[in-house]
Amino acid sequence: MPRILICGNLVWAHQECNEMFKGIADVVVMDSPDRADFLKNLQPGGKYAGIVGIYRHNISADKIGVFDEEIITALAPSVQWIAHNGAGYDQIDVSACKKKGIYVSNTPGAVDDATATTALYLLISALRQFSLAERNLRSDRWKSGIHSGNAHDATGRTLAILGLGGIGMRFAELAHAFPMRIVYHNRGKVESAPEWCGYYPPEKLDEMLKIADVLSVHVPLKQDTEGLVNEKMIRTLKKGSIIINTARGKVIDEEAMIRALEDGHLAAVGLDVYPNEPQVNPRLLEFPNAVLLPHMGTETCDSQKKMEIRALNNLRDFLTRGKGTDLVPEMK
Amino acid sequence: MPRILICGNLVWAHQECNEMFKGIADVVVMDSPDRADFLKNLQPGGKYAGIVGIYRHNISADKIGVFDEEIITALAPSVQWIAHNGAGYDQIDVSACKKKGIYVSNTPGAVDDATATTALYLLISALRQFSLAERNLRSDRWKSGIHSGNAHDATGRTLAILGLGGIGMRFAELAHAFPMRIVYHNRGKVESAPEWCGYYPPEKLDEMLKIADVLSVHVPLKQDTEGLVNEKMIRTLKKGSIIINTARGKVIDEEAMIRALEDGHLAAVGLDVYPNEPQVNPRLLEFPNAVLLPHMGTETCDSQKKMEIRALNNLRDFLTRGKGTDLVPEMK
Repeated sequence: MPRILICGNLVWAHQECNEMFKGIADVVVMDSPDRADFLKNLQPGGKYAGIVGIYRHNISADKIGVFDEEIITALAPSVQWIAHNGAGYDQIDVSACKKKGIYVSNTPGAVDDATATTALYLLISALRQFSLAERNLRSDRWKSGIHSGNAHDATGRTLAILGLGGIGMRFAELAHAFPMRIVYHNRGKVESAPEWCGYYPPEKLDEMLKIADVLSVHVPLKQDTEGLVNEKMIRTLKKGSIIINTARGKVIDEEAMIRALEDGHLAAVGLDVYPNEPQVNPRLLEFPNAVLLPHMGTETCDSQKKMEIRALNNLRDFLTRGKGTDLVPEMK
Repeated sequence: MPRILICGNLVWAHQECNEMFKGIADVVVMDSPDRADFLKNLQPGGKYAGIVGIYRHNISADKIGVFDEEIITALAPSVQWIAHNGAGYDQIDVSACKKKGIYVSNTPGAVDDATATTALYLLISALRQFSLAERNLRSDRWKSGIHSGNAHDATGRTLAILGLGGIGMRFAELAHAFPMRIVYHNRGKVESAPEWCGYYPPEKLDEMLKIADVLSVHVPLKQDTEGLVNEKMIRTLKKGSIIINTARGKVIDEEAMIRALEDGHLAAVGLDVYPNEPQVNPRLLEFPNAVLLPHMGTETCDSQKKMEIRALNNLRDFLTRGKGTDLVPEMK
């Protein structure tokens, strides 16, 4: 019987996991206190020796660190599939996996609704000054210092979506309810995008930034997207515009964003992600018009369960059919 | 030339006001420091003597108090129309106005989008624990103590709307984007409601409360709605449900609501309004799962301007055509 490893505890789909792999694989749970112990036990005779597939959750990084080249090298050649739980898989060195012939899947779709709802919340709060207003109330100042001149309806404003994948598309649908005018930039045109969602190709990116009231970031963190939202992009936005980020902190040049908040070029930001989580740059806390969540994008029991099941399904499909459905784009 | 009185300063539609009443009426601005001065100047020879119409904003109550029987009596017989700026007109004694033959209009429609957006924000924040999460981040605790088991997606849950007027209907449209299952209670069936919005008549109110994940209050404050959401209604809701209020604080029995938060019957509340604003019951601040805004429902420059123009239009139509369009329901 092949063996699979659960790397980062299942919370919602314990029972489903037992049933899904009955007669298909033996399930081993990773319980190493640190990286050294983990690496040691991958070797012949170790408790993880010979595993062929891994279910991985980011929480495992607290103990053994991210899946960098060192870990990937140690996993080969027995491990053939890493089923990551999450949309973003920046904690896995995909190019090392490619070299070693290890497939990587993520859980697209399962995270779209919860993450897009988070973006919608940040958008409303940033446009309407609700985060500031709630802090005001809780420090016994009611509305003092809040000016409706700084607060805007979402309805009728222009939302620019950077990266129209599953999350960006779901966010577009939700914001369309107001309606907002919705435009997007993507490397290529998304053929399934509805007609009300206008495409701005790379050569027209500046044009899109100039008309946006809100720019929302939905690109994965990769080498070529690190710092993508840089000084130049931020300054191409209109004065008074807003940036929302529910993707990854490092996609934005944080220093450039903070400068733009300081000099009033940006009216507000709504952030769920930061470059060095769980650290948050303390300067962000000083801006009254910053809405700051601690990476809550997919933190609902509904979505967590969907994600666990989806990741486990990828692993199961690999075992029974040779391939999971959610291979990451670099491997397709 | 007839004279009209601006009671509570215009902020956004100064210029429009001047143009709208050119050749139609002289515009007098109320500048009394207190009620006594206001009442004195309504008498013959006073600076407000002989005015026929009033534009009124709640902010005027800071100086002269609400439009109670004493003020209404002093306005008669010269004043014939009070054009109130706002959807809720509980600061005007409408039955006293009726007795004195004074018409009252409000600004329905103009407030729908901004208030419904506020309700949507409260709903997302309460379901997802975002208010708690942001307070966590700002006190350097990141996600500690936050359990995704207590956080839920809006999608697929049931939203019960109490009072399907303009704001309730707009909120239904926005929540339908997820989609949520949407049901409503109203004294009468709303014929214009879409088919996905199920009606629960008075005799089926309990049935609606039992299936609701979220109850959102959208009835105006009147004698027969004060304390409408009482102990019995709250306890008929499922354990773990959520109450949202963007209408008026007094529509809910606050003590009953607090008891239900204390014993966990209610999982969360999202409130924009309170019984004695700007006072907020300090016990509400103790619940981690209370989202509390300082009556921000219509606080956007877009909506404030729409409301000012709509109120002024009612006054202008009264002067030029004998009647404004937005007469309050009791007077229709």
